[in-house]
Amino acid sequence: MTLTTTTPRLDAGWLLDLLDTRPRGHSLPGACYSDPAVHELDLRLIWQRQWIFVGSVAEVPEEGDFLSIDLGSASVVVLRDDDGRLQAFRNVCRHRGSRLVTESHGCVGNIVCGYHHWTYATDGRLLHAPQLPPTAERAALGLRTVHLREVAGLLFVCLAAEPPGDIEDVARVVAPYVAPHALDRTKVAAQTDLVEHGNWKLTMENNRECYHCDGHPELLCSFFPTWGLADHQVPERLRADHDRYLLAQVDLERRSEDLGLPYALVEDLGRPVGFRLHREPLDGAGESFSPDGTRLVGRLLGDLPDARLGRLGLHTQPNAWFHAQADHVVTFAALPVSVDRTLVRTTWLVHEDAVEGVDYDVASLTATWRATNEQDAAFVALTQAGVADPGYEPGPYSEAEEQVEAFVAWYDARIREEAAR
Amino acid sequence: MTLTTTTPRLDAGWLLDLLDTRPRGHSLPGACYSDPAVHELDLRLIWQRQWIFVGSVAEVPEEGDFLSIDLGSASVVVLRDDDGRLQAFRNVCRHRGSRLVTESHGCVGNIVCGYHHWTYATDGRLLHAPQLPPTAERAALGLRTVHLREVAGLLFVCLAAEPPGDIEDVARVVAPYVAPHALDRTKVAAQTDLVEHGNWKLTMENNRECYHCDGHPELLCSFFPTWGLADHQVPERLRADHDRYLLAQVDLERRSEDLGLPYALVEDLGRPVGFRLHREPLDGAGESFSPDGTRLVGRLLGDLPDARLGRLGLHTQPNAWFHAQADHVVTFAALPVSVDRTLVRTTWLVHEDAVEGVDYDVASLTATWRATNEQDAAFVALTQAGVADPGYEPGPYSEAEEQVEAFVAWYDARIREEAAR
Amino acid sequence: MTLTTTTPRLDAGWLLDLLDTRPRGHSLPGACYSDPAVHELDLRLIWQRQWIFVGSVAEVPEEGDFLSIDLGSASVVVLRDDDGRLQAFRNVCRHRGSRLVTESHGCVGNIVCGYHHWTYATDGRLLHAPQLPPTAERAALGLRTVHLREVAGLLFVCLAAEPPGDIEDVARVVAPYVAPHALDRTKVAAQTDLVEHGNWKLTMENNRECYHCDGHPELLCSFFPTWGLADHQVPERLRADHDRYLLAQVDLERRSEDLGLPYALVEDLGRPVGFRLHREPLDGAGESFSPDGTRLVGRLLGDLPDARLGRLGLHTQPNAWFHAQADHVVTFAALPVSVDRTLVRTTWLVHEDAVEGVDYDVASLTATWRATNEQDAAFVALTQAGVADPGYEPGPYSEAEEQVEAFVAWYDARIREEAAR
Repeated sequence: MTLTTTTPRLDAGWLLDLLDTRPRGHSLPGACYSDPAVHELDLRLIWQRQWIFVGSVAEVPEEGDFLSIDLGSASVVVLRDDDGRLQAFRNVCRHRGSRLVTESHGCVGNIVCGYHHWTYATDGRLLHAPQLPPTAERAALGLRTVHLREVAGLLFVCLAAEPPGDIEDVARVVAPYVAPHALDRTKVAAQTDLVEHGNWKLTMENNRECYHCDGHPELLCSFFPTWGLADHQVPERLRADHDRYLLAQVDLERRSEDLGLPYALVEDLGRPVGFRLHREPLDGAGESFSPDGTRLVGRLLGDLPDARLGRLGLHTQPNAWFHAQADHVVTFAALPVSVDRTLVRTTWLVHEDAVEGVDYDVASLTATWRATNEQDAAFVALTQAGVADPGYEPGPYSEAEEQVEAFVAWYDARIREEAAR
Repeated sequence: MTLTTTTPRLDAGWLLDLLDTRPRGHSLPGACYSDPAVHELDLRLIWQRQWIFVGSVAEVPEEGDFLSIDLGSASVVVLRDDDGRLQAFRNVCRHRGSRLVTESHGCVGNIVCGYHHWTYATDGRLLHAPQLPPTAERAALGLRTVHLREVAGLLFVCLAAEPPGDIEDVARVVAPYVAPHALDRTKVAAQTDLVEHGNWKLTMENNRECYHCDGHPELLCSFFPTWGLADHQVPERLRADHDRYLLAQVDLERRSEDLGLPYALVEDLGRPVGFRLHREPLDGAGESFSPDGTRLVGRLLGDLPDARLGRLGLHTQPNAWFHAQADHVVTFAALPVSVDRTLVRTTWLVHEDAVEGVDYDVASLTATWRATNEQDAAFVALTQAGVADPGYEPGPYSEAEEQVEAFVAWYDARIREEAAR
Repeated sequence: MTLTTTTPRLDAGWLLDLLDTRPRGHSLPGACYSDPAVHELDLRLIWQRQWIFVGSVAEVPEEGDFLSIDLGSASVVVLRDDDGRLQAFRNVCRHRGSRLVTESHGCVGNIVCGYHHWTYATDGRLLHAPQLPPTAERAALGLRTVHLREVAGLLFVCLAAEPPGDIEDVARVVAPYVAPHALDRTKVAAQTDLVEHGNWKLTMENNRECYHCDGHPELLCSFFPTWGLADHQVPERLRADHDRYLLAQVDLERRSEDLGLPYALVEDLGRPVGFRLHREPLDGAGESFSPDGTRLVGRLLGDLPDARLGRLGLHTQPNAWFHAQADHVVTFAALPVSVDRTLVRTTWLVHEDAVEGVDYDVASLTATWRATNEQDAAFVALTQAGVADPGYEPGPYSEAEEQVEAFVAWYDARIREEAAR
């Protein structure tokens, strides 16, 4: 317990020293997952500096609609203003700091602080604040804006004054893949918030490999048995399955080309807005995350004429992953709650005209990923307990965990880069 | 996470630097409300150095009666000794430190530690401690005393070795206002403990303004619609209400003079024992905090012959406020639990001869302030979330928040003063 | 809140300064019980360096049986391997750190990590880890071993690279006292985990004196009324009781000699593996911890022909105490959970052939110590609250608390010794 200042918090030298101890291809030192001081630096150098996925346009379809989301103790409101433009603000009143919005989603005429009724327009201007002293400059008391970037309906915010600029390049690559799924004509069919008992980096590392996928019986129905194996790694007993996979891939490429959909793998995980995406076949009927691979939603997305389009898989550093099928999209946002708690918000999007009970059933639609999320939460909790143990030593990644290494390397690079600013 | 010593905790230089960043008329920097290190300094420089309101004589009427109260981790017992004198002690056994008293109120013959039965007289002397070694000096092992000052029945304690001396001056001013309500002839009709989810300073700031009083529908029945407005600020539509207010004030002053009751506003919020008090009219019947302003207790306090005496409002820095009417008194003590939790103890006092169910009804008596407290707790929780957000910036107080500024200035002055000792 | 490095944690100089302020024969300064930084040092200098009692052979009787136990955030698995030897390992996977074992007791063929199925033999060797890169050295990826020492069936582990060597000397003295109770032929009749709301040192100090035993009505049935008093301290009214005690002691010594059982007091509390043991009579029938002193288990332990063997009392620094009677043994392990939480695991062992419901009844067997533990937990919680109070000052121990002083002196010596390494 010490009482030194809160000011020079950004001295991250010791974290750099700690990161220096990690041999490439190994997990991070334990303190990176369990020390509150590392978490504080993560919040400042990652969560308050990088582009963070927060939701999609389906969550804010109409003027006045908002979503709010917490990045650690920082809360952001994303709002569609009266002119239909998306805005992002700090969820903090400019008077005495009260939270403005307390629900995760809602709709407002103006933004009215519940405490003293200071009132802001949907574009952030201060409209009403009685008895202000003459010295107070009303024009300077609008809501603090936050950088917002939409990429084919996916919403990213950045709390930094100067956000990483490469989001434009990334958007150019990613948008054509996502656009055919027409997120601007989807609606939210379901959304779950699950608090995992682990550091946010464990949540991300868990997501970046399928080395543990034996622990996901529901999900394995959708993935081919040789998923993730190189040709030479395929065991003899799975040869027939693998041939089936190769044929499905050829079929998917042909269909994609017919529809003008991009499908090739693009992986650029190391840059600030690191990402990876590709379209790949699903097993069974190849349409969706159902036990037999058939579609889960009768109405297909956008103008897609073909249900058998497998899965468009997209990852973005540091906090999101997505699966877009012909019939629905699932978005996942990982959000830090504390050094050892992470919220995973999962959202299922279907065509805005799809009718619940007719075109889809929420329980079936969400079954695979609800189960998979719960299983992953258990893995993350087991790992959090272990990495906080003084007996933990970083171990070597397997060849199936290359994207975990890529994530850790991304983290390492950003910490060094931002600490040097 | 660091392991430096606990000893040089009082280096408050960085807090002074932080306070220096505050422009006058603005709320405090976020760390003042959310950083555990600031809270530790608050405990040491405010709560262990200033005079703190802890209760009233109505809570300890008889010999052996005690109340206990926690100021952070420091617990104090206020006890009426066998000679009828009030005493205050550290609630800690001199042997191995066990808590002595665990209930908030009770009555004892002697104070007996539950662990090893060390026994203390009600004046603190150690009476019984078997098998003490010859080297132990029994006379030096009495309970540690705490400074206690009664002001017309209100009880203040100070944990400092040398308490601020100005309590004598303040008592001389305050006592004549409070004395006619005869607290020594009251009893506790009700007491509630409410834990607000916010820093103690937010609880106090909330109390020091009625700029938010639209959020208090029950309380607004008692206050005139133009309460807190200067003449020139009264809007036309409230002119008639305001005239009613001015007449009520004249009437109250006349009644007070008839009875020899002081009523003039005295405000001296900046000194160590900062305070503010005055008598002012209530709306409706003007007697009490009921929906129509009629009295809530049939039996009036002390020897008051007149029920229509409005409200004697008293604030004391840093932790209390009071409303004394002809029929009852309400005392409020705010007490820090942790950096973001504050206990508000509210006590309703009525004439000791008033009979529950005949002269008063607890539900009606307490309705307005129970509701108001709950509403304030919600405001404080919203504000705590916001000021802990890195997106918070101190904002300007309105002209209706002058007493908030006075509280913050008092806090600033005390921290500087005590840090310099 | 500071962000300095986690690396130089072992600078314990300020704790030594704090310990220097303690006059001999007095309790520790408050920070020793309540400051998280002291707790961090306690974990590193005591719990990760000393021999810690974790259970007995009765908890791991067969090949593959394991017990797991947490010393702060460090988890240890004690396992009987396929060759029947006891092994102790860090409960951490060598891959990405996941906890291996999550139950306190169980039985395994191999140790399989639940996350990615890395598989270890019961002797710790890594058996299975698919797709490891060529650079990874499998032979170096076995489970990390922990030092383990069995003393007549009692199991001690040490997390240090070089454990205190004196356990061999201590084992030589202790084993002959414990061996006749034949722990290797016992089974667990009952086990309770109780979390006390206090620092682990308060739990130990509470255990090291009977000055508070008036608070243990059940236990007092088993102890003679003059237990712990020197001859000259016995009050006149207890003279007859004391004579009864002296006779019982002579009787016990005679019986012990007949059976070749050691009984003399040996006290050596100051060394790293500090301990104290002796055999002493119980009141009433003198056989066990029942209200009238008669045996609680029909089947006696080992080959003991005589039920009236009183109590073999054993303490070991820093975390255990034991009572061995002719009919059953009770072991107690205190384990730190956090600075103000301590787990007390209590285990009742009976002959492996004793039949529940015939030879013993669990409720009766465990009644005295379940009640006593609960009472002690209440004392510890009261004391934790008090020692965390800034009004606490270390007080003098009575003459009945010499072993408390011995424990505190042991703690003081170990901290100095280990900090100097």
